[in-house]
Amino acid sequence: MIKHLRSAADLDAETATLILDTAGEMAALAGREVKKLPTLRGRTVVNLFYEDSTRTRISFEAAAKRLSADVINFSAKGSSVSKGESLKDTALTLQAMGADAVVIRHPASGAPHRLASWVDGSVINAGDGTHEHPTQALLDAYTMRSRLGTLAGLNVAIVGDVLHSRVARSNVLLLTTLGASITLVGPPTLIPVDIAAALSPATKVSYDLDSVLPGADVVMMLRVQTERMQDSFFPSAREYSRRYGLDVARMRKLPEHAIVMHPGPMNRGMEIAPEVADSTRSTIVEQVANGVSARMAVLYLLLGGKA
Amino acid sequence: MIKHLRSAADLDAETATLILDTAGEMAALAGREVKKLPTLRGRTVVNLFYEDSTRTRISFEAAAKRLSADVINFSAKGSSVSKGESLKDTALTLQAMGADAVVIRHPASGAPHRLASWVDGSVINAGDGTHEHPTQALLDAYTMRSRLGTLAGLNVAIVGDVLHSRVARSNVLLLTTLGASITLVGPPTLIPVDIAAALSPATKVSYDLDSVLPGADVVMMLRVQTERMQDSFFPSAREYSRRYGLDVARMRKLPEHAIVMHPGPMNRGMEIAPEVADSTRSTIVEQVANGVSARMAVLYLLLGGKA
Amino acid sequence: MIKHLRSAADLDAETATLILDTAGEMAALAGREVKKLPTLRGRTVVNLFYEDSTRTRISFEAAAKRLSADVINFSAKGSSVSKGESLKDTALTLQAMGADAVVIRHPASGAPHRLASWVDGSVINAGDGTHEHPTQALLDAYTMRSRLGTLAGLNVAIVGDVLHSRVARSNVLLLTTLGASITLVGPPTLIPVDIAAALSPATKVSYDLDSVLPGADVVMMLRVQTERMQDSFFPSAREYSRRYGLDVARMRKLPEHAIVMHPGPMNRGMEIAPEVADSTRSTIVEQVANGVSARMAVLYLLLGGKA
Repeated sequence: MIKHLRSAADLDAETATLILDTAGEMAALAGREVKKLPTLRGRTVVNLFYEDSTRTRISFEAAAKRLSADVINFSAKGSSVSKGESLKDTALTLQAMGADAVVIRHPASGAPHRLASWVDGSVINAGDGTHEHPTQALLDAYTMRSRLGTLAGLNVAIVGDVLHSRVARSNVLLLTTLGASITLVGPPTLIPVDIAAALSPATKVSYDLDSVLPGADVVMMLRVQTERMQDSFFPSAREYSRRYGLDVARMRKLPEHAIVMHPGPMNRGMEIAPEVADSTRSTIVEQVANGVSARMAVLYLLLGGKA
Repeated sequence: MIKHLRSAADLDAETATLILDTAGEMAALAGREVKKLPTLRGRTVVNLFYEDSTRTRISFEAAAKRLSADVINFSAKGSSVSKGESLKDTALTLQAMGADAVVIRHPASGAPHRLASWVDGSVINAGDGTHEHPTQALLDAYTMRSRLGTLAGLNVAIVGDVLHSRVARSNVLLLTTLGASITLVGPPTLIPVDIAAALSPATKVSYDLDSVLPGADVVMMLRVQTERMQDSFFPSAREYSRRYGLDVARMRKLPEHAIVMHPGPMNRGMEIAPEVADSTRSTIVEQVANGVSARMAVLYLLLGGKA
Repeated sequence: MIKHLRSAADLDAETATLILDTAGEMAALAGREVKKLPTLRGRTVVNLFYEDSTRTRISFEAAAKRLSADVINFSAKGSSVSKGESLKDTALTLQAMGADAVVIRHPASGAPHRLASWVDGSVINAGDGTHEHPTQALLDAYTMRSRLGTLAGLNVAIVGDVLHSRVARSNVLLLTTLGASITLVGPPTLIPVDIAAALSPATKVSYDLDSVLPGADVVMMLRVQTERMQDSFFPSAREYSRRYGLDVARMRKLPEHAIVMHPGPMNRGMEIAPEVADSTRSTIVEQVANGVSARMAVLYLLLGGKA
């Protein structure tokens, strides 16, 4: 088993599949009301969050507690440790305290890689800058597999601000590893072609959502970060929503079996219409539940489960 | 047993009495140094606080931990989830994560009712706007019963800014259910007569504290929220304290057995004199201890205790 | 065993030695991967922090959780309870909630002493104003003893802003009790002679770091609080670093066996050069690990361990 999960690139097909299978076992146990496993009793998981992300933090916290680990929350936003130069000292502190795993969210791309060079415990990337968010990709892959049976051969459209999306980046890497075909969809300013190629040579690019939908098994809508709308390369909100928002009319163009995903939190009415978010195609609530199972699987396998 | 505790109106006399009896058992166990019960092992209690309230939050946290539940604190103040429109998405998130109970504090009256329509777990109102705070009423009722033996027939004076007090509202509902008689006391601008009638037809109103004290078994002083003192309908601090503050002279007008209550935190010297707060009639410290027992009882009965 | 640890002056040589021996046992258990002890199951430890100090807070939190205690974090900074007049009410609240120990960090010197007069549980000072930080002194003493075998007869130089340092104050008291000789080193404005004498008559004072180093077994560099550099009695940063900073050239003047300590977080390049901080003489990372062991020992002995 790998020691760290810094990037979806840390996962080959075999390891990724083992994590998804393990997530399935975790979900099955929860379904049978077995909510607490003794596996990680006595282990300490530190949530080291340099950015606010209550949802991701409590998903990891719930996952670790169900495995009986001790959880220490370390919210570094605004504190003196949020200065980049002290990440090393913080790492040495956590190392010295005997943290078995550090779950890190950081505004700087690459911070988890640097952290992993300084600590003995496992490092799990919970989002670093615009770089990666590998457990989000795992929960997304798990959700697709649960709904559609397999990942091999699936056509997945990822729609929106791909340029700044760590969710998109990790999904392209992981889903390609697992045999899916990706089409990135969005305004040209938000999908540089070279980025798509660098992520995975087989990744396709489209600027026309309507033409992609009839062939898609999965449409993954990315969150629009409204603060970026100020930027000159960003379309207006109205224009963005008109061309790339998923409304009911567009949802009808999908094949009957296709599903609609969103990593949350949604801007209802911007990138996704409320009727679409609440439709039976939508997996948005399942994704949250699957997030806990996927993170349990990652903690279990990295920290002490047998493969 | 009821599933949610959104309002004191969720409690009939039988259920309320069962909760008070159970709180008594919890207190007795704590008194015998049995501080940890295995009852809720593996259950997850989320403290979802959209307003700061460290005292209430740690009272629920201590109660849940003594029952061996896992506790996840979700402080939503100032974060993006504090926007009203996202309560539903947050609810679906907690639902998907398998929260067995959500303890919610929210600035909007009625938020716990809306939350209960979206989640499978139990919803416990820890204060919503100016509406209700039912566990405060339970701990107050428990305290009265402990000190005075029974609630039936007690004369309880609730003194202060009744108009904005969720503590007063929940107490009127619960204490009336349990057979006590309530008199609301305060300046006319802070006790609209129709509110008293709407809460409970038998509730009396008085604008003269001195005339009420000789017949009271319990005087419950409400906290003055000093920021409201700016409002035109509020008396000046000096005038308020002179007419409705409980000082030593006024305390002497009470019957010998009568007790003085306050939900805390107090404005010593404003609504209550320090000598009164620290007197043997005062139950203020007991109320805090009883808060943990009452919340243990609520969590125990709603989440898995047998009735 | 003592009940409270408000000051290093609460510790006589026998008690301090017992704590250091117990810390050694805790460290040995952790080294054998025994990370969780059942000792304090059912006990509640409250971290009552009126100042931010993530590192100290998580060190205590990790220590308490390894002993199986329940931990409740109470961050009072900026909340209404941070007003000095309400410490008593907060104390009564914690008391009523059955806190077995309160770990307090407070900007006012003496706050732990006042707190101890209001609660039944143990009070542990985690830093009060410019007054004391006794668990820091214990972990420092443990670190010296681990590296150098004994404390009796050691020459310890404490360098920097002694005037405002609770770390220095607690170390002088504890190390003197345990037989070490202290020399305080820094600019005259930051080491009033009467303070040194009041702490311990045998404490020496020097304004010349270079002359002290050849005779030192331990050099403890204090953190410069850069916000104090505005004050007229403080040298300029450049002047301070030139005269009292520990760089490689100065480190070479130490005897071969001597160690370099720092309580963290460091200002690398100000009071300590990066090459010194990362050298084999440096115990900075060990100090952090020893902090958890020392705090486990304190909680264990104060809350229920047999001596």
